[in-house]
Amino acid sequence: MYIVLDLKQVIIVRKDLKMGIGKTAAQVAHASILSCEKARSKNIDWFKEWFDFGQPKIILKVNSLEELEEINEKGYFHNLPTAIVRDAGLTQLDPGTATCVGIGPAPTQLINKITSGLKLL
Amino acid sequence: MYIVLDLKQVIIVRKDLKMGIGKTAAQVAHASILSCEKARSKNIDWFKEWFDFGQPKIILKVNSLEELEEINEKGYFHNLPTAIVRDAGLTQLDPGTATCVGIGPAPTQLINKITSGLKLL
Repeated sequence: MYIVLDLKQVIIVRKDLKMGIGKTAAQVAHASILSCEKARSKNIDWFKEWFDFGQPKIILKVNSLEELEEINEKGYFHNLPTAIVRDAGLTQLDPGTATCVGIGPAPTQLINKITSGLKLL
Repeated sequence: MYIVLDLKQVIIVRKDLKMGIGKTAAQVAHASILSCEKARSKNIDWFKEWFDFGQPKIILKVNSLEELEEINEKGYFHNLPTAIVRDAGLTQLDPGTATCVGIGPAPTQLINKITSGLKLL
């Protein structure tokens, strides 16, 4: 029996930085690309299946650096494709500011263990 | 002599749809991923070099479907990695609504021929 996995990618954004819409979108795209590259190395089947089934992405928010780093650490701890974005600081933010974290593509039930308490951006 | 190419990815968003910040960010990330996959197939060196040099992304805007489709056609015409995003329509938009276009990663001077007149989102 072949079971289609329920896969998604979640991106968690720091709301406290008050980034504009274009800046936010660029940071989320950075996280998406970086976390996809991690998935390709870690579990290419997760990436391929997610890619072929519409690449679902969920954008969530946290309100501090501490919350973001905690999510990032949990992603690594659970051995999921995880990537934190640190801004180059050319516009709006100081160099090295952590703006968002991407987790997945990975099975929804594994990601939910980490992000189920968070609200949509 | 080895010349480092100046590469970027540009994502063009329809401003007339009045999408929220989370929706916009998700659509931009879709475009980024899809266009990166095109670049991997078309010119893997463009992708690799762009990835290794900070993955610069520029988010621009248009005000109509017609403008977005024109950009998309120009991307294809110039044989650049190009991807249009059509929303599944589960939230906010009608199914199949074209929301944004990704072009690149590709050399900046080639992309600028298509997008130089557009403003930042």
